Amino acid sequence: MSIRVGIVGIAGYGGGEVLRYIAQHPEFELVYAAGESTAGSRVGDRYPGVPDDIGNLIIDKFDPRAINNVDVLFASLPTGASREPLAEVGNSVKIIDIGGDHRYVDGWTYGLADVWPEQMKGKTRIANPGCYPAATLTALAPLLTNKLIEPANIIVDAKTGVSGAGRGGGDSKFTYAECNEDLAAYGLLKHVHMPEIAATIDLLSGGTSGQAAAGLVFTPHLIPMTRGILATIYARGTATTDQCLAAAREFYKGRKFVRVTDKSPHTKWASGSNLAFVSYACDPARNLVIALCAIDNLGKGAAGQAIQNANLICGLDEAAGLGCTSLWP
Amino acid sequence: MSIRVGIVGIAGYGGGEVLRYIAQHPEFELVYAAGESTAGSRVGDRYPGVPDDIGNLIIDKFDPRAINNVDVLFASLPTGASREPLAEVGNSVKIIDIGGDHRYVDGWTYGLADVWPEQMKGKTRIANPGCYPAATLTALAPLLTNKLIEPANIIVDAKTGVSGAGRGGGDSKFTYAECNEDLAAYGLLKHVHMPEIAATIDLLSGGTSGQAAAGLVFTPHLIPMTRGILATIYARGTATTDQCLAAAREFYKGRKFVRVTDKSPHTKWASGSNLAFVSYACDPARNLVIALCAIDNLGKGAAGQAIQNANLICGLDEAAGLGCTSLWP
Amino acid sequence: MSIRVGIVGIAGYGGGEVLRYIAQHPEFELVYAAGESTAGSRVGDRYPGVPDDIGNLIIDKFDPRAINNVDVLFASLPTGASREPLAEVGNSVKIIDIGGDHRYVDGWTYGLADVWPEQMKGKTRIANPGCYPAATLTALAPLLTNKLIEPANIIVDAKTGVSGAGRGGGDSKFTYAECNEDLAAYGLLKHVHMPEIAATIDLLSGGTSGQAAAGLVFTPHLIPMTRGILATIYARGTATTDQCLAAAREFYKGRKFVRVTDKSPHTKWASGSNLAFVSYACDPARNLVIALCAIDNLGKGAAGQAIQNANLICGLDEAAGLGCTSLWP
Amino acid sequence: MSIRVGIVGIAGYGGGEVLRYIAQHPEFELVYAAGESTAGSRVGDRYPGVPDDIGNLIIDKFDPRAINNVDVLFASLPTGASREPLAEVGNSVKIIDIGGDHRYVDGWTYGLADVWPEQMKGKTRIANPGCYPAATLTALAPLLTNKLIEPANIIVDAKTGVSGAGRGGGDSKFTYAECNEDLAAYGLLKHVHMPEIAATIDLLSGGTSGQAAAGLVFTPHLIPMTRGILATIYARGTATTDQCLAAAREFYKGRKFVRVTDKSPHTKWASGSNLAFVSYACDPARNLVIALCAIDNLGKGAAGQAIQNANLICGLDEAAGLGCTSLWP
Repeated sequence: MSIRVGIVGIAGYGGGEVLRYIAQHPEFELVYAAGESTAGSRVGDRYPGVPDDIGNLIIDKFDPRAINNVDVLFASLPTGASREPLAEVGNSVKIIDIGGDHRYVDGWTYGLADVWPEQMKGKTRIANPGCYPAATLTALAPLLTNKLIEPANIIVDAKTGVSGAGRGGGDSKFTYAECNEDLAAYGLLKHVHMPEIAATIDLLSGGTSGQAAAGLVFTPHLIPMTRGILATIYARGTATTDQCLAAAREFYKGRKFVRVTDKSPHTKWASGSNLAFVSYACDPARNLVIALCAIDNLGKGAAGQAIQNANLICGLDEAAGLGCTSLWP
Repeated sequence: MSIRVGIVGIAGYGGGEVLRYIAQHPEFELVYAAGESTAGSRVGDRYPGVPDDIGNLIIDKFDPRAINNVDVLFASLPTGASREPLAEVGNSVKIIDIGGDHRYVDGWTYGLADVWPEQMKGKTRIANPGCYPAATLTALAPLLTNKLIEPANIIVDAKTGVSGAGRGGGDSKFTYAECNEDLAAYGLLKHVHMPEIAATIDLLSGGTSGQAAAGLVFTPHLIPMTRGILATIYARGTATTDQCLAAAREFYKGRKFVRVTDKSPHTKWASGSNLAFVSYACDPARNLVIALCAIDNLGKGAAGQAIQNANLICGLDEAAGLGCTSLWP
Repeated sequence: MSIRVGIVGIAGYGGGEVLRYIAQHPEFELVYAAGESTAGSRVGDRYPGVPDDIGNLIIDKFDPRAINNVDVLFASLPTGASREPLAEVGNSVKIIDIGGDHRYVDGWTYGLADVWPEQMKGKTRIANPGCYPAATLTALAPLLTNKLIEPANIIVDAKTGVSGAGRGGGDSKFTYAECNEDLAAYGLLKHVHMPEIAATIDLLSGGTSGQAAAGLVFTPHLIPMTRGILATIYARGTATTDQCLAAAREFYKGRKFVRVTDKSPHTKWASGSNLAFVSYACDPARNLVIALCAIDNLGKGAAGQAIQNANLICGLDEAAGLGCTSLWP
Repeated sequence: MSIRVGIVGIAGYGGGEVLRYIAQHPEFELVYAAGESTAGSRVGDRYPGVPDDIGNLIIDKFDPRAINNVDVLFASLPTGASREPLAEVGNSVKIIDIGGDHRYVDGWTYGLADVWPEQMKGKTRIANPGCYPAATLTALAPLLTNKLIEPANIIVDAKTGVSGAGRGGGDSKFTYAECNEDLAAYGLLKHVHMPEIAATIDLLSGGTSGQAAAGLVFTPHLIPMTRGILATIYARGTATTDQCLAAAREFYKGRKFVRVTDKSPHTKWASGSNLAFVSYACDPARNLVIALCAIDNLGKGAAGQAIQNANLICGLDEAAGLGCTSLWP
């Protein structure tokens, strides 16, 4: 018998990517979709590529108390908009919150699926990591747990495709004409993703709370591409490149979605998939470890990881429905 | 003594490109800038590239009766928004309306600067051609005046960059994430530029009013690029490629901004300039003439042609301020 | 027991997309991969996204007589390079030739899988349609078989992403710097895909051989995007839009990969999938039928259709391994 | 009387951009153009946008001893290819070497035109800075000269558009299909531009030779855009944002091409121009100074700076021919 799933925020890019994975999932059946502006229309009006059995579902306004026929709910709502309604969802409904409202919140498990998959077991409330944290922490976890870098002196220079900004909400700065042939840093010294990165660094390094935050530098950049995140991370340590690669290969042994590579990873390697590619380049003479991670911001950075988490809490193969490779070119 | 110019609609793409040309114009001095959302701010806040003498100008709300110190006004307002206010501008102010409200309107000259430059002389009200018509008519004019094609049987398959849609006004369909890696036709059988194309075809071919419109087909497409228009035009006629090229070379002899080329023209050849590249490929056995024209939609398709028209009505060299080449790559 | 498949031309874009579909196919197992420049390296060196069971396969030089353990061979070789080697492949090996050498060649079936799927049954030699013909003919088939348009008076204005040019072979005209922000027509009046389009039009319309070719106009354009083809087709006929849509819905009833849509189709709707979206816009007063078809040039235009054909000749569900939706955005 | 100039390497992107600036320069007249693959053809065949007086010039093979009628020679040759031929050019010919062979070479002045313009006076051999160093050093110069940061502990995370790779030379990794929707770091820990950055840091900070190099980290990234470089630089210091901005405003007072801005700079602000935009964001509590600089890699990063240097050594206004603003959008 299939598992009945729902999506709240179906019209956004995160919700749409969850839909794509559900459409090819062997166990998940979409029985519920909710949206604001699209309520009342067919799922297929928004997503012409889905087959009719999915496309004919009518999008509802989200009513958290009326979804008791749903086994797993994927919520992809703007920051600040999910805390109240999700609190009203019944306990029988498992929730994966792709939005940012429940990360490091009591009662919710931070869903870093490749780093601590066993922590998902038996849980019903998963806070899916942000896109930047997913890339950053996947690269750092092996280094931190092996104490190969200083946890309180980390600089993250991150680059994201424009879909990371969501559907744009009428801001001309995300239009094609203005994003194409442009590149800039934004949110200097104050990005909303910093706390979850710092908190996780502390957990992984065994540091006291707040230790990483004191030194963490995080600079996001908007890149003229639709999908993809690359995190280029500068840390202090005297490990060699080979030591870092070996530590990561050991750390991610048996994990299906993290690939440790000698070569500098490309975001295109991950495009359309739940994959993460990590690599390292070190110069012990400079006390330098460069860690790199490339993902699809809508895959490992959002919907792919959400499906993986749903698989884990449902006791399925973590890879169910997630396909096995990316698009090229 | 310099000519004092103003721009209404300074924050839009058309207004911004007029600003760029004015900034390098030897005779035009920007003394007035008006906008809606940007009123009260500095021109330089919107356009960080301009030097301070221009950048420090404060943007006004447009008041048509308070601009008597302006010699030439460039208006780049949304369709429907310019007819009333421009009617209130005093006669001493010359106007170039880049918007669509005054094309083929009594008292206004349709500013096809390369086709009938002498018609601008002494005029004070110029309706600048639309971007698609600029490309289409530049390719067709030599054929129509030489009766090399049937005027009532013309198919225009046109392609534009996204800046042609203006600054986007909050529609997610113009965001980078959705335009990139996408392509579609739009406005099938009913684009707002059809009447001015048809009216000009009738004028150039000596046809009766409405003759061209009966058979004209115009299909615009949105292309994932910021600037550029290519018009691919299918017409009926038995001229050879060489005859069409020769007719165009003769027609545009001495014109600085139209280049007739043997090769299939690229929009990049015109990027950042007022240039138009036209070419032809014919198959008399199929009764077929293909006419091609590549322009920058913000150059020859809007601001470049507007400056050229302003030069013509002011008695200046038509090329003043327009530079002499395009960007590559 | 799984079906053993091989890919010749593994390093090209067509071969790579076949690989992607095979990687998610429930019945096909990749046992053989051949390439020129990549021979001797691992499949995973070229495609970092594939899992190790596929990635560890070593790429061979193609030896047509040494592949008898292969049940189905996908050949994606440059035009002119496949006729001789494929003639040496044993009869026990089924072949799908994605390249252009066997279209309308004796002994090979032209693999228009959505139009005449029943013709694949029992066949062992399939000539996969070209990317432009796939888009063009999918839109035209319902009109031609229902005699809604004149078969000898068809203009195809087609637009393709740059992956359609293959991996580029060192020509700077396909570099990012020169393709981005550019658009041009090419191959005017002489594209290599015209004969198969004309031959198929004659077949579908019941015309005599050569009838369509006499009037066919085909103009391809290079668009700054990686994937996607849109065919905008101008034909003569007095059918209404509704009649054309109804004819197409009837024609493609039960076909999983062709979607008939009221809206103007976007290439992004098909991106990463084997889907084709067709629509029509008619103006009987102008004796005009506009037919539109959007596909992924590497999906329905190459590898997707190839897998579909392989499924058909192997007696599998035609949709096996092809997923069920496209990427958005 | 005009100054006679020549370009060697006319077909490359750097050479082409020099040509564009020369075409609009009030004093420079192009009398000589040389190239390898294009020798024998017209300049206009390669650059359809230039007017005929320039376009009709025939491209020569470069013969360094046959150019005595040239006053200023712009050389834009591949690294390693300019040292020998340029040594044979007569002393009466001033040379601006845009390539990398003469940076910090005896007898050549490193042409950081906005930082030490007075050093160009009377010189005849200028080594134009590399594109990455131009961006990096423009941001760092005010900090280093004012001792606001530690010179031996600088991390440069730099991002460039694809034109920075030159015309591509047949490598599929620079094709549109592979660069679009992709992003990666390259040249980790060993980029060829590091020595000139380190040497200049030592000069500006008054450090001993080699001091900066010991700690310098430089990571370039390839971005899917044609033009533009952003350098995001992480340094150690306790200055505030306001102090850094004030230092830069003082340092660049009166310089026409460097704009100090409160906002995070966008590469598009500089597109098609010789402008550089610098900004700073500091967190004294983290001992952190972030310096940012956005340029057009073909403008300030190559041809724009080359023209500026040529102006300086010829005693002209440094801004001659360089226009006054950038393209938007």
